[in-house]
Amino acid sequence: MSMNTKMLTRADCAALDAQDPLAAMRERFEPAPHGTIFLDGNSMGALPRGAPERAMRMLRDEWSAHRRHAWTVADWLDAPQRIGAALSHLLGARPEDVIAVDNTTAVLHKLLAYGLQLQAADAKRRVIVVEREGFPSDCHVVQGIVHHGQGRWEMREVDGPQDLPAALRDDVAMVLLSHADYRTSMRWDMAGVNEQAHAVGAYVLWDLSHTAGALPVSLQGDGADFAVGCGYKYLSGGPGCAALAWIRPELQDKAWPALPGWLGHAERLDFRCTYAPAPGPLSLIGGTMPVLQNAVMETAAQIWRDVQREDLAWKHRSLSTTMATLLLEQCGPHGVELVSPAAYEQRGGHVAFRCPGGGPVCEALLAEGVVGSFRHPDGIRFGLAPLTLSHVEMWDAVARLKGILAEERWRDPRFAEVSI
Amino acid sequence: MSMNTKMLTRADCAALDAQDPLAAMRERFEPAPHGTIFLDGNSMGALPRGAPERAMRMLRDEWSAHRRHAWTVADWLDAPQRIGAALSHLLGARPEDVIAVDNTTAVLHKLLAYGLQLQAADAKRRVIVVEREGFPSDCHVVQGIVHHGQGRWEMREVDGPQDLPAALRDDVAMVLLSHADYRTSMRWDMAGVNEQAHAVGAYVLWDLSHTAGALPVSLQGDGADFAVGCGYKYLSGGPGCAALAWIRPELQDKAWPALPGWLGHAERLDFRCTYAPAPGPLSLIGGTMPVLQNAVMETAAQIWRDVQREDLAWKHRSLSTTMATLLLEQCGPHGVELVSPAAYEQRGGHVAFRCPGGGPVCEALLAEGVVGSFRHPDGIRFGLAPLTLSHVEMWDAVARLKGILAEERWRDPRFAEVSI
Repeated sequence: MSMNTKMLTRADCAALDAQDPLAAMRERFEPAPHGTIFLDGNSMGALPRGAPERAMRMLRDEWSAHRRHAWTVADWLDAPQRIGAALSHLLGARPEDVIAVDNTTAVLHKLLAYGLQLQAADAKRRVIVVEREGFPSDCHVVQGIVHHGQGRWEMREVDGPQDLPAALRDDVAMVLLSHADYRTSMRWDMAGVNEQAHAVGAYVLWDLSHTAGALPVSLQGDGADFAVGCGYKYLSGGPGCAALAWIRPELQDKAWPALPGWLGHAERLDFRCTYAPAPGPLSLIGGTMPVLQNAVMETAAQIWRDVQREDLAWKHRSLSTTMATLLLEQCGPHGVELVSPAAYEQRGGHVAFRCPGGGPVCEALLAEGVVGSFRHPDGIRFGLAPLTLSHVEMWDAVARLKGILAEERWRDPRFAEVSI
Repeated sequence: MSMNTKMLTRADCAALDAQDPLAAMRERFEPAPHGTIFLDGNSMGALPRGAPERAMRMLRDEWSAHRRHAWTVADWLDAPQRIGAALSHLLGARPEDVIAVDNTTAVLHKLLAYGLQLQAADAKRRVIVVEREGFPSDCHVVQGIVHHGQGRWEMREVDGPQDLPAALRDDVAMVLLSHADYRTSMRWDMAGVNEQAHAVGAYVLWDLSHTAGALPVSLQGDGADFAVGCGYKYLSGGPGCAALAWIRPELQDKAWPALPGWLGHAERLDFRCTYAPAPGPLSLIGGTMPVLQNAVMETAAQIWRDVQREDLAWKHRSLSTTMATLLLEQCGPHGVELVSPAAYEQRGGHVAFRCPGGGPVCEALLAEGVVGSFRHPDGIRFGLAPLTLSHVEMWDAVARLKGILAEERWRDPRFAEVSI
């Protein structure tokens, strides 16, 4: 920040809102309680306006009225594909290559196990590369596969992009990375990593939890092999809804799923005892899918179907840049430093910063209607949901932060206990 | 049937209804559309009356109002244990030993994999015993574990109880059986099988899909090792809701779960990268649970919490005996034969029969408001949901069946296509 540069004003934010190609999308979600600015889209998206009515219809007009016949009458069975198709453009994938199934952890396991099978014939490929301080479930999934693999697989941890070249040797079978880090928002260069991994014959599995729905992803264009997207964060599919699963077309139909089941059978509902995998990502479906949860998730998917990739890119860049700028300009003098990378291109869906007070500042913000989240050791995260937030709200949130820091209101003992 | 025996009348059925200790439970579910008799509780239970209001509250007052803070404010995280505890008495299990998680197929996989780990030290135990014509997903789960086991495990199929003694040798690691068959309703002698299996050192995993919620099960008393219950059939938890998972207390905490994840960590929400399993069945939880689906399932669990085991036993015996008797007395002369065992003690939650016309009879019944289901090769199944059905409805359903058979109305071409 230079004193010669004109600082961003609230009027500048309003001017950006006037250009926002996604401004109208806000009306398709239930409004936040008056005065509240939810900056935790990295944790939980907003409720689609159509969701309650859709849930009622599913409960009363479908389940209660038709019971089991609703599987066909209401087309419940194909919701995983419909949802996947409606969201596929956000991931840079073909509609038929994405399905909504299970949860992020289960899909990470299934795709990692699938990729390892493709590598299993080569006995020297024993290594799964993963981030040492990655999201816990990502680590647990790898540890689980190593634990159960009877010595076949081992884990190699990296601390960041600087470690990757040395870790990528010809003994690597799979690489599992969070596209953006859940604490810092540091975003990997997806195309670059895929290229490096492929050069040594490894496959890459991407956890898109902190990018899917926040910014456009280019799975196919960037040469990814496998990906999982969390449905309930930026994508607003509802707490605990299905995750998105994607397999690169050339890698489909080459192995059995880790957990075969009747609804992932090639001849679904023919009740055959001998398993044969359904084509494409469908075989990732094992047992019965959560119908009510999918009905609500589909109301979110229908909103996203109307979102253009270029508009999402504009909004992400604009919100992320605005937030980073305001944090430094308005609160830098009060000790705020960015934890997230300074370069916009290296950030995922949230902006993280540190400041004096840390966790209690986050609680003080909550008391003033700004909902961020704190992660140890020192990051407050502001998740920037692109369909429900405005630039003026960035200003207003940072203004409240500035007041809390300037007057040290976070020192109030009631802010000492930091919520999850 | 002897002509000397007084045949059961509609008035007899009404008299049984007057004695029904569970009669009042019917009011706690949404009523069926006028005139419809749903006999497919083996496929999909009724909608609990409180479910729509609970779903609305979850969507508007919890998710929309509190977003991520609802995890703690609304206690979403512990729903799997609360639901398991509320249903545990139906299974003959301690409250803390049952949780609601994933779906039946995924839990079958997890529990089978868990049991196999406990046996893995003994290299000669290589066999998983399963029913040759079991429910497809049960077969697929075993086939999946054999397929991925790199030769460690093999499958041994049995056709029924008569085959089991010969199949149970000291090379058996696990036995997976459907407590009641999905077509015939044939119910295994759980205590007897457990005893036989334990005598050769094998563990038994029970799929309770066609008994849980239909009749009381005695997992602990009968010496079972592992069990899975489907939540959306008799238990009315809603289409695609979580399954119930149970592990015998002495076998808990002895191995890692097949799919470790952050919400099954011993120090949940501490965000530790090094996995350590949560105690008891909790480690079966991997990723984020389906919150809306659980909220609705919990409304069903709250109803079941008020159901006594002895009342459920009475109702099952009474409905099952009444249905079998009426089918033979009223429709035997029109060619109806029981597919289900003649002895009540050998039947699960439904009664299956065959008759001239087969599948088209099932469609003709549907047109007259009686919802059964057909399964190849020749069984029509009447699932007897104990909380929502009366004995008079048994009479009325069989009376409609009698008319369809007597007048051969099933020959109408519009009944030729048989629904799932």
